Amino acid sequence: MADLDPQETRLVLDPAVRDDARSRLRSIRGHVEGILRMLERDDVYCVDALKQIKAVNGALAKTGDMILRCHLKHHVVTAHERGDDEAIVAELMDILKYR
Amino acid sequence: MADLDPQETRLVLDPAVRDDARSRLRSIRGHVEGILRMLERDDVYCVDALKQIKAVNGALAKTGDMILRCHLKHHVVTAHERGDDEAIVAELMDILKYR
Amino acid sequence: MADLDPQETRLVLDPAVRDDARSRLRSIRGHVEGILRMLERDDVYCVDALKQIKAVNGALAKTGDMILRCHLKHHVVTAHERGDDEAIVAELMDILKYR
Amino acid sequence: MADLDPQETRLVLDPAVRDDARSRLRSIRGHVEGILRMLERDDVYCVDALKQIKAVNGALAKTGDMILRCHLKHHVVTAHERGDDEAIVAELMDILKYR
Repeated sequence: MADLDPQETRLVLDPAVRDDARSRLRSIRGHVEGILRMLERDDVYCVDALKQIKAVNGALAKTGDMILRCHLKHHVVTAHERGDDEAIVAELMDILKYR
Repeated sequence: MADLDPQETRLVLDPAVRDDARSRLRSIRGHVEGILRMLERDDVYCVDALKQIKAVNGALAKTGDMILRCHLKHHVVTAHERGDDEAIVAELMDILKYR
Repeated sequence: MADLDPQETRLVLDPAVRDDARSRLRSIRGHVEGILRMLERDDVYCVDALKQIKAVNGALAKTGDMILRCHLKHHVVTAHERGDDEAIVAELMDILKYR
Repeated sequence: MADLDPQETRLVLDPAVRDDARSRLRSIRGHVEGILRMLERDDVYCVDALKQIKAVNGALAKTGDMILRCHLKHHVVTAHERGDDEAIVAELMDILKYR
């Protein structure tokens, strides 16, 4: 984690984005439970299970995008003013690998 | 779903792969709960949350790979003999989009 | 490469797909040259260069999909009959990593 | 393109990165020509062609990463000071889709 002023390291998700992220993750958890049930039945077709896993991956990616957008808006665009641009850019390039 | 002989449409995951897939999904569910807890605290750094989401995505992708490998081994390599190769190939290309 | 009967290892791209793949690659080459010219000018905006690289990546992925579909149709769905399913599946899973 | 002060919209690739990006693109162009030659021969195995396309995709992605890192360092971390953070963030989220 970039050695930032502690105040700036808070997850500055504005309330609407945070609530949205949490409700998406709750439905993702429900979706994972659905795949678990699916894998207990021996009459499911593997491509149907693959489609469910792909859908969960997509929902997770959207949740990540919301948090990434907030991070860009609140931490990255102000990094030069704070003086931690090197660390913030390095951290961001790392998280963006294999997105 | 390909109009296959019903017997072939079962998720032919051999027991070891199926158990492995289920235990991975149980740990993925636990991991999602961890991110939910993380997002309740207002002192978490957004990049830490992004790393957790990325880790869950990776674990889901591995679970999907296991099921895909089984599907290739049991359904795809025998499709020509069954006569449903067109449907099996179309279905597979669809599931592989944006992997 | 799977130890296949030499006859089956030919790139069984039917003529239409092969011509299409070659014309796409020729336009991709032209597109790469365009980015090279872009990077010589010092008035280009980096996001414009990134968009061009992304477009080339997309065109390459489409060309790859065409060849993959042909490989599935001609080599993979008949692998069990030939007896090289293990090698064909291993090779396919390798090529699909980080798609 | 973000309505930036024209001076800031130049591709601020420092000379070393720009030269590196251009030499990578020249070798990518050569690599694409190699795949074109490969697709003329009818004895090539499709998976070999797919591996070459994947390698070119990887080289393009690395070139893009170099330009992205420079954009983050020179344009994004200073966006708040310039006052165009909204446009810069929107543009960045767009370019990062399906990376």
